[in-house]
Amino acid sequence: MSCQFRTDLAIETAEIFQESNELQGVRINKTIGKISGIEVTRVTVENEIGAQQLGKSIGEYITLDVPELDQSDLNYHREISQEIIEQLRLFAQNFYDKDILVAGLGNRKMAPDALGPMVVDNLFVTRHMMDYYGKETSMTKGMGCVSALAPGVMAQTGIETQEILKGAVKAIHPDLLIVIDALAARSVHRLNKTIQLTNTGIAPGAGVGNRRHGIDEQSMGVPVIAIGIPTVIDIASIVNDIFGDQIASVDVEMMNMFVTPKNIDEIVVQMSYTISEALNRICHPMGTSCI
Amino acid sequence: MSCQFRTDLAIETAEIFQESNELQGVRINKTIGKISGIEVTRVTVENEIGAQQLGKSIGEYITLDVPELDQSDLNYHREISQEIIEQLRLFAQNFYDKDILVAGLGNRKMAPDALGPMVVDNLFVTRHMMDYYGKETSMTKGMGCVSALAPGVMAQTGIETQEILKGAVKAIHPDLLIVIDALAARSVHRLNKTIQLTNTGIAPGAGVGNRRHGIDEQSMGVPVIAIGIPTVIDIASIVNDIFGDQIASVDVEMMNMFVTPKNIDEIVVQMSYTISEALNRICHPMGTSCI
Amino acid sequence: MSCQFRTDLAIETAEIFQESNELQGVRINKTIGKISGIEVTRVTVENEIGAQQLGKSIGEYITLDVPELDQSDLNYHREISQEIIEQLRLFAQNFYDKDILVAGLGNRKMAPDALGPMVVDNLFVTRHMMDYYGKETSMTKGMGCVSALAPGVMAQTGIETQEILKGAVKAIHPDLLIVIDALAARSVHRLNKTIQLTNTGIAPGAGVGNRRHGIDEQSMGVPVIAIGIPTVIDIASIVNDIFGDQIASVDVEMMNMFVTPKNIDEIVVQMSYTISEALNRICHPMGTSCI
Amino acid sequence: MSCQFRTDLAIETAEIFQESNELQGVRINKTIGKISGIEVTRVTVENEIGAQQLGKSIGEYITLDVPELDQSDLNYHREISQEIIEQLRLFAQNFYDKDILVAGLGNRKMAPDALGPMVVDNLFVTRHMMDYYGKETSMTKGMGCVSALAPGVMAQTGIETQEILKGAVKAIHPDLLIVIDALAARSVHRLNKTIQLTNTGIAPGAGVGNRRHGIDEQSMGVPVIAIGIPTVIDIASIVNDIFGDQIASVDVEMMNMFVTPKNIDEIVVQMSYTISEALNRICHPMGTSCI
Repeated sequence: MSCQFRTDLAIETAEIFQESNELQGVRINKTIGKISGIEVTRVTVENEIGAQQLGKSIGEYITLDVPELDQSDLNYHREISQEIIEQLRLFAQNFYDKDILVAGLGNRKMAPDALGPMVVDNLFVTRHMMDYYGKETSMTKGMGCVSALAPGVMAQTGIETQEILKGAVKAIHPDLLIVIDALAARSVHRLNKTIQLTNTGIAPGAGVGNRRHGIDEQSMGVPVIAIGIPTVIDIASIVNDIFGDQIASVDVEMMNMFVTPKNIDEIVVQMSYTISEALNRICHPMGTSCI
Repeated sequence: MSCQFRTDLAIETAEIFQESNELQGVRINKTIGKISGIEVTRVTVENEIGAQQLGKSIGEYITLDVPELDQSDLNYHREISQEIIEQLRLFAQNFYDKDILVAGLGNRKMAPDALGPMVVDNLFVTRHMMDYYGKETSMTKGMGCVSALAPGVMAQTGIETQEILKGAVKAIHPDLLIVIDALAARSVHRLNKTIQLTNTGIAPGAGVGNRRHGIDEQSMGVPVIAIGIPTVIDIASIVNDIFGDQIASVDVEMMNMFVTPKNIDEIVVQMSYTISEALNRICHPMGTSCI
Repeated sequence: MSCQFRTDLAIETAEIFQESNELQGVRINKTIGKISGIEVTRVTVENEIGAQQLGKSIGEYITLDVPELDQSDLNYHREISQEIIEQLRLFAQNFYDKDILVAGLGNRKMAPDALGPMVVDNLFVTRHMMDYYGKETSMTKGMGCVSALAPGVMAQTGIETQEILKGAVKAIHPDLLIVIDALAARSVHRLNKTIQLTNTGIAPGAGVGNRRHGIDEQSMGVPVIAIGIPTVIDIASIVNDIFGDQIASVDVEMMNMFVTPKNIDEIVVQMSYTISEALNRICHPMGTSCI
Repeated sequence: MSCQFRTDLAIETAEIFQESNELQGVRINKTIGKISGIEVTRVTVENEIGAQQLGKSIGEYITLDVPELDQSDLNYHREISQEIIEQLRLFAQNFYDKDILVAGLGNRKMAPDALGPMVVDNLFVTRHMMDYYGKETSMTKGMGCVSALAPGVMAQTGIETQEILKGAVKAIHPDLLIVIDALAARSVHRLNKTIQLTNTGIAPGAGVGNRRHGIDEQSMGVPVIAIGIPTVIDIASIVNDIFGDQIASVDVEMMNMFVTPKNIDEIVVQMSYTISEALNRICHPMGTSCI
C-alpha cells in the first residue's frame, strides 16, 4: 500500500501507516517543546523502503502542532517563532556565519499561496550590505548574510521555479537555501495549524502551485531547508475525509480547485510574521535592526 | 419545498424547480444576444409566492451564460462587455444623465472576493470633476457622473457594508447605486462562467462575505442594480453536486471554507476588466478618456 | 506676516515665528518623554490671533521628534508606540470604554500616501464582535470597540473624504474619530522623523491628497484626533529650503509634484506598525489577541 | 564637456550638446510615425567618442515623444502601442520565432518604480505551454515563446539585479532579453511623456533603483532590448532646471530623494498597459488569447 491522497505533510502519511503498524524504515518521535509547550513530531525517513512507503524523500520532517497558529495574537506568537528557531538548529547549528538565500515560493496575488512571498517581504536582507561594508563592521554588527527571492509561479513566469532557483544559486553561491512554501494538507484539522520543517527540500508536485521539479540538495547543489504550512486542501482529500474510501471519482473540473478558509488572507499575514521573525532572529542573532 | 442549497444565482434555484414543474410566480425567458451570441436567461420573480419558493426577492434576474468568461482574450472580451451594456439598459434607459455611485463589495486581499474592488479600481470616476468644472464643459464633455467606493468587508472594518453604504448614499445622494459583488454558486460548471444582473440588489447572507443585511432600494432609498459573478462554491454545495441528497452532515469547520480554482487570481483580474469596461462605456458614452 | 510655505506641521510654522519673537496666542512647551527619551513639543494655539498667525486651528498640536523613526528596528520601535500612547492620553483618558472609528486617509497604491490605509490594515477591529457577543464576554474580554475605514482618495472615489466620513459617522455614531494621514513637511530634516498628534482634526488643503474640506469636531459632530507623519515635501518648500526667499516662481507643472525618499515604501510599512501598535494597545488594554 | 546631470534619456543629453554644435560620433534623426503621428527621434551613438561625450553606450536610442502618454484614454492608447511595435522591429525583425525573456525591473511596492513589474503582470507568458504542448499545436497556435521575471530591487533581495538575470539567462537560454525599467529624466516636461527604446540595455547607475552593474549583451550573453519611461526626476536635476548653473551644492539627504507627480500611481498603471499590449501583440502576432 502506498499513500494515495494528496498531502505535503509527512506526518499525515506517517499517521495513516502507523495505525496499521505497517511502517518500515521510518521512525516517529514525539516531544513537547520545553518553553513553548508545542507538540513536536519528528518523522525520520531512514531508507528507500520508508521513502517509497511514505512517498517522501529520505531525511527529517519536523512537525509543530500549533492549534492557535491561525488565531491572532498581540505578541505575534513569539513563542512559536522561538520553537521554530530551536528546531531549525537541528538542521544547522550556525546560521549567522552562513551566506543564506531564502526563496519565498508561491503566488503573492493569491492569499493561500502567498505565505512564501510574504515571509520574504518581512525578511531583513543584508547580503548587499555585507558586499558593501563587510561583515562585523559598525554598519553590519551582529548581522548574518541573508538574500531573498520571491520568484513567482510558473503561470506568471513561464519558467519552472526550480530553473530560476538553480540560476540564482549558481550566480550567488549561497551556503544554504531556505525555501518557504504554502502546502496542501489532507485533513481540515491540520490546515493553518501545522508547521513542517524538513531538510529534504520541496518534492515535485507538492504545494499549492503543483511544482513539477523538486528543489533539494541534489538539484540545487547546496543544502536545502524547507519550511511549510498547509493552507489549502485538495478537493479529493476533503471528500475522502467525509466519506472514506467509498468514492469512485471526482469531477475533472474540480481537480483544479482547492479549499481554504474564508479568512485565509488574515491568517497568512500573521503566519508569515511568525516565520519571518524566526528567520530574522536566527540569522541576525545580535542584530538590533530589522524589518 | 424551498431551496436548501447555498447559491446566489436565481437561475440555479429556478432550474431546480423547473425540472419538477413546481414553479409558480416565476417566469423564465431565454434569448440569444444578437451581436454577442451569448445565452441570456431572464428570471422574473413576479410575486411573494415566487419569492418564497425561490428564496429570492421580487424583481428581475438576468443571467448571461458565458463559457469563455474565465478564458483570457486579446480583446478583453469586448463582446461580453457589450452584452452587459445591452442588458443593463433593461433596468435604466439612461445612465449618462444619472448621478451614479458604484460600490465594489468584497475583500481586495482575497482573490475570489476581490471582483468588486478591482472593478472599482478601473472605473473612470468623474463626480469630483462635475462638481469642479460642471457637466458638458470642455473638461467633462461626453462624461457621465460616476463616484465609486470599495468599502471593505466586516472583518476589516467592524461595520456592516449596508451601514457604510447607507451613510454614503445619504451624504452624496446618487440617483442610482450599482453594487458589484463576487457570488457563491452551487454548481462548479457555473463558476466564473455566469454573470448575473439584477434590480433587486444584494440579499442578506449572499456573497463570499456573507453579508447580514441586504442592500436594496428599500434599505438604500435609491434604486439598486447588482452585478455579480460566482467565483466560489460552498463546501456543502459541492458535496451535494457529487453525492446528491445522501449527505447527512458536513464538518462544522468546513462550513467556513470555500472552493475556488487555482488560477482564480488571473480569472478575477480579467473578469473585472469586462465589467469595468461595460460600466465605463455605458456611463460615459461619448467620453474619449478613460481608465 | 503669515506662513506662506506649505507644511502640515504646526511645529514648523511655530518655529519660524518663534525665531522672530512674533508669536502671539500660541504657547510652546518642550519636554522629554520619561521612558522613551523622545523630545515632545506641545504647541497650543490658544485663540484666533494665534490661529491666524500660524494658519492652524485652535487646539493642541503634540509633536514627537524621533530621529530613528525611519530606521528599521527588531522591536518595531516599541518605545515610540508607548510614547504615542502616553501623549494620546492627554486628549482622552479612556479609549477602552469608547466606540472608536479609525479612518486611514490616503491612497494605498502610493507608498508615501499609504500610511493611513496601512495602519488600518493592522488594526484589531472589534465593533462587529461587540455587536454580536456583547462587551466583556469570554470572546471580547479586555477589548475595546474599534471600527475602521480606508475611504480612498478623491481621484479614486470622486467623493470628498469629508463626505464619506460624515456619512459613516452618521451611520455608526462613534464616540471618537481618529484619523491617520500622511503629511507634507517643509523641511527635509523632519521627513519620516516627526509624529504629530492633534485634537483639531485635519485642516482643508492638508496632506498629500490635498483635501478640500476639513475633518474636525465641527464637521463630524464627534471629537476628532488626528495622527500624522510627514512623508513628502512640496517642490516649492524644498526649493525654499535651499535658496531662502530669493525664488520668484516655480514651474506650474512642478506644483503637482512631490519629493520623497527612494526607500519610502519600507519606511511607511514600518511607521504604520508603530502607529497601529499604539492604537491596538490603547484601545484593547487587556486584550490578548491582536493583529 | 561631458554631461553632469542625471538622466537616463539619451535624447536629453544629445539635445544639450546639439545646442552647442559640439556633438561628434552621434547622429540624430527625427521622423513622424506614419499612423500614430508620434515624433520619433533616433539617436545613434556611433563610436567611443560619441559614447564618452554622451555618457551612453554605443548603439541606438529611439525616443517616442508622446505628450498624451500620461493622460487616460478609453482605448488604452492603442496607437502608441502600435508605434512601439513599429520601432521595436528596427531591433529585431521577428519576435514570434524567438524564445524571449522579459524582465520587469524595479520595485512593485513603489508606484513610480513599478512600471517593469506591472508590465510583466500583464504579459501573456507561454514558455511553459511551449514546453508542455509544443509550438504551433492547437493550444499554442499563433503564440510566440515568452517568459517573464520581476526580480525585485536590491533592497528587497540583497542581490544585484544583474546577478539574478545572469542566473536566469544561463538557466533558460533565451534568444533575446527585453528589460522594462522606470527611468530618471532631467526635465519635468519629459516625465511620463517619453518612451525610450534601446538595443544597449540598461547602463550601470541608471533607473530609479540606481543599479550598480549594467544589463547588456556583454554581461548577459544574449541581445538585450531595453524599454523605459522616465517617471521620476532627481532633486539635483530639477533644481538645475529652475536655476541653471548657479547651484553649488544640494543637501546630501536630498540626494536620496526623487520627484514625481501626485497621480503617478494612475499614470503608471496606464503606461504599463501600453507597453504590455505592444509586447503581447509583437510576440503573439496571431494569438487570439491574451492577458
